[in-house]
Amino acid sequence: MARVVVDVMPKPEILDPQGKAVQGALPRLGFSGVVDVRQGKRFELELDGEASEAVLAEVHQMAQTLLSNPVIEDYDVRVLP
Amino acid sequence: MARVVVDVMPKPEILDPQGKAVQGALPRLGFSGVVDVRQGKRFELELDGEASEAVLAEVHQMAQTLLSNPVIEDYDVRVLP
Repeated sequence: MARVVVDVMPKPEILDPQGKAVQGALPRLGFSGVVDVRQGKRFELELDGEASEAVLAEVHQMAQTLLSNPVIEDYDVRVLP
Repeated sequence: MARVVVDVMPKPEILDPQGKAVQGALPRLGFSGVVDVRQGKRFELELDGEASEAVLAEVHQMAQTLLSNPVIEDYDVRVLP
């Protein structure tokens, strides 16, 4: 059993309305000092076996085809210890 | 300038329909070997200053009040290197 995390974030040049909404809400709640917020998604996958190179290549395929939209989002795959 | 990540995930005992939808879609796309998927949110905060202990305590406050729903979600705060 291996656990893999796929982080999906909007590309830097893409407008992020969710992040902007959070950023706008923070001062109204009394929080200051946050100059930018980006909101993305985090997937935790539990794999039936070891995180071999072949399996991780398949996770990259999943990230590209299902978990992220490569036009507007970047993703990052990492194995949890 | 410090960058802080807040990961927000559904608590283990909470049903996660988004994760289940992803899990159900994977075999239809030809991917096998994933036994569980949980979907959560990832926030990247850019701070106007250093990530001191006082500032991180404030980020925990933000995570508890705005970024997560503590009844159904767990959160994790970490400083990006």
